[in-house]
Amino acid sequence: MELIDETIAAIEPIDTQAAARAAARLDSLTKPQGSLGDLEEIVKRYAAIRRDPQAAFGRGAITVFVADHGIADSGVSAYPKAVTTEMLRNIASGGAAISVLARRLDFELMVTDVGVETDTSESALSGVAYRRVGAGTKNFLDGPAMSLDQAREAIAVGIETARHAVSRGATLLGIGEMGIANSTSAAAILSAVTGIEPERLAGRGTGIDDATMTRKIRVIEQALQLHRENLRNGVGTLASVGGFEIAAMAGACLGCAAASVPVVVDGFIATAAAAAAERIRPHLFDYMFFGHRSSEGGHDLTLKALGVRPILDLNMHLGEGTGAALAMSAIREALALFREMATFQSASISGPIKIK
Amino acid sequence: MELIDETIAAIEPIDTQAAARAAARLDSLTKPQGSLGDLEEIVKRYAAIRRDPQAAFGRGAITVFVADHGIADSGVSAYPKAVTTEMLRNIASGGAAISVLARRLDFELMVTDVGVETDTSESALSGVAYRRVGAGTKNFLDGPAMSLDQAREAIAVGIETARHAVSRGATLLGIGEMGIANSTSAAAILSAVTGIEPERLAGRGTGIDDATMTRKIRVIEQALQLHRENLRNGVGTLASVGGFEIAAMAGACLGCAAASVPVVVDGFIATAAAAAAERIRPHLFDYMFFGHRSSEGGHDLTLKALGVRPILDLNMHLGEGTGAALAMSAIREALALFREMATFQSASISGPIKIK
Repeated sequence: MELIDETIAAIEPIDTQAAARAAARLDSLTKPQGSLGDLEEIVKRYAAIRRDPQAAFGRGAITVFVADHGIADSGVSAYPKAVTTEMLRNIASGGAAISVLARRLDFELMVTDVGVETDTSESALSGVAYRRVGAGTKNFLDGPAMSLDQAREAIAVGIETARHAVSRGATLLGIGEMGIANSTSAAAILSAVTGIEPERLAGRGTGIDDATMTRKIRVIEQALQLHRENLRNGVGTLASVGGFEIAAMAGACLGCAAASVPVVVDGFIATAAAAAAERIRPHLFDYMFFGHRSSEGGHDLTLKALGVRPILDLNMHLGEGTGAALAMSAIREALALFREMATFQSASISGPIKIK
Repeated sequence: MELIDETIAAIEPIDTQAAARAAARLDSLTKPQGSLGDLEEIVKRYAAIRRDPQAAFGRGAITVFVADHGIADSGVSAYPKAVTTEMLRNIASGGAAISVLARRLDFELMVTDVGVETDTSESALSGVAYRRVGAGTKNFLDGPAMSLDQAREAIAVGIETARHAVSRGATLLGIGEMGIANSTSAAAILSAVTGIEPERLAGRGTGIDDATMTRKIRVIEQALQLHRENLRNGVGTLASVGGFEIAAMAGACLGCAAASVPVVVDGFIATAAAAAAERIRPHLFDYMFFGHRSSEGGHDLTLKALGVRPILDLNMHLGEGTGAALAMSAIREALALFREMATFQSASISGPIKIK
């Protein structure tokens, strides 16, 4: 059985019994019932995903997939493609935002080159896994961004990366990315999945001007038209207008779910991957936390259309997994409260007044 | 000169030059300009408050003030007054939510009894500072909750606590509280300051039923009517319908501003203290971060009326400084990104494409 099918077959419904038991313990802690708000919802869902009423936390890991996009040649980004390679180097050497956050918050940072145009594997950047599916995708105005085989290969890279993280003790995995022009690819995927018009979805990415923005929207519209026959399923959508790093993130979502490990989705581009993954395996969102509401394009609209609520809302739009990292920190603290707070009984706290 | 006046006299406008220099450095970091969103605003304001373009972070401290309220005798809370003492003990012994968060996030936790009904000072709970202004306030339906002298004394306790925190290296101070029935007091203060009707402000506190809620709203309406002559300034408002812990938090806001240290305001009750403090010294909000949007009563309405935007929105309504603690963690990470990220120059990253 192929890795993808085997992974999908291994995904079970989340364990609502574990959530109910966690809820009972939450109500015994020294606080008014429900007063930890979203943190309580997080604990319950973590317990359900982990199938563990104790909601034990092992460690957090963040996986950043990096790849180039042929569509960059259509002039949709403010930065040249070279920046993908340069940022891969920056992430690996500790200077990028996600490097700082992972180091400070003690999350393992896993960086994978899934298909950067410039091959740096000979110089083997420290800490980078080379799982190159190609030297960047093709321009999806000329045909599919990648073949179906390449899409499956990139998804498999994500599954294997998730498995590797889990084998090293991760019980929470954040997914992030870097790739010049990938907000164009993500907007195309999200438009295909949600039906929201490209005009309302496309964002300023790295900071494009009005003329580039107009071009970006037109590019997405053309691509959706060109590939309309192949946008009816997740893998087809990823192959047609996706990117290697987006397909890999989708794979990581599947891989985590199969291992009963929650995924923390970063911003706009990671959400495109999550949406594609849920097309591949319905109800996969049960296994995901959406880390933050990004200020990129129509991310807010998208989250509403997908029926999910993000943990943070900090007007960030950096990518790399930065929003996921901050949300993972909040999740970890929610779990610590659940584990370490006293109960009404253990602390001998009086219960509510009996009125009447 | 009295401590309060001396403190107010020491407060200067925040340093917009320091913020401008921090902004210039933010734009040099390896990320699209502005892509860290609110985190960038946080760094700039921290720099302005600290009068430090480097925005250096020393350490964070959380001060929790605890006191009892005479208004509890009017049946406005779901829990008996005894819970204030019991929770003081729980906070001190490490079992409360704020104890867990402060320990885990490495913030110094300072707990002060400003006037709990039951005096535990003889058994001297470990880590609790006893600065008791009285054995709880009076019922403010019978007269002012406290005398003006007591209000000034409680404010002074807050100022001195802030000074103590700063002397121990704090460059960021979270304010929180515990006190059965204090959401009634806070709603009265916030209604006096913002003009929003008690009906839209009062919340469920620790989880009151409909009948208690109706009574709570009527109590606040009566109090505002009874004390209307004394609600025109901050100290008068605190004395009339406030609490010792609320006055102390207002004092901490003043003390921090005088020491150029930002305050992180917790939820509904801390916001009442912050609002009273800004009545005492206009523009004091410049020195404050609002930690989170609480789901208690009309906190959202209040924040809008006060013209401030909270950092987090997690539907919490626990108090104790718990929302402030999580926000302080985000602030600390924002400062770390500012300090530790590479610049475009240091990482040799290409700039934007020059179009045309």
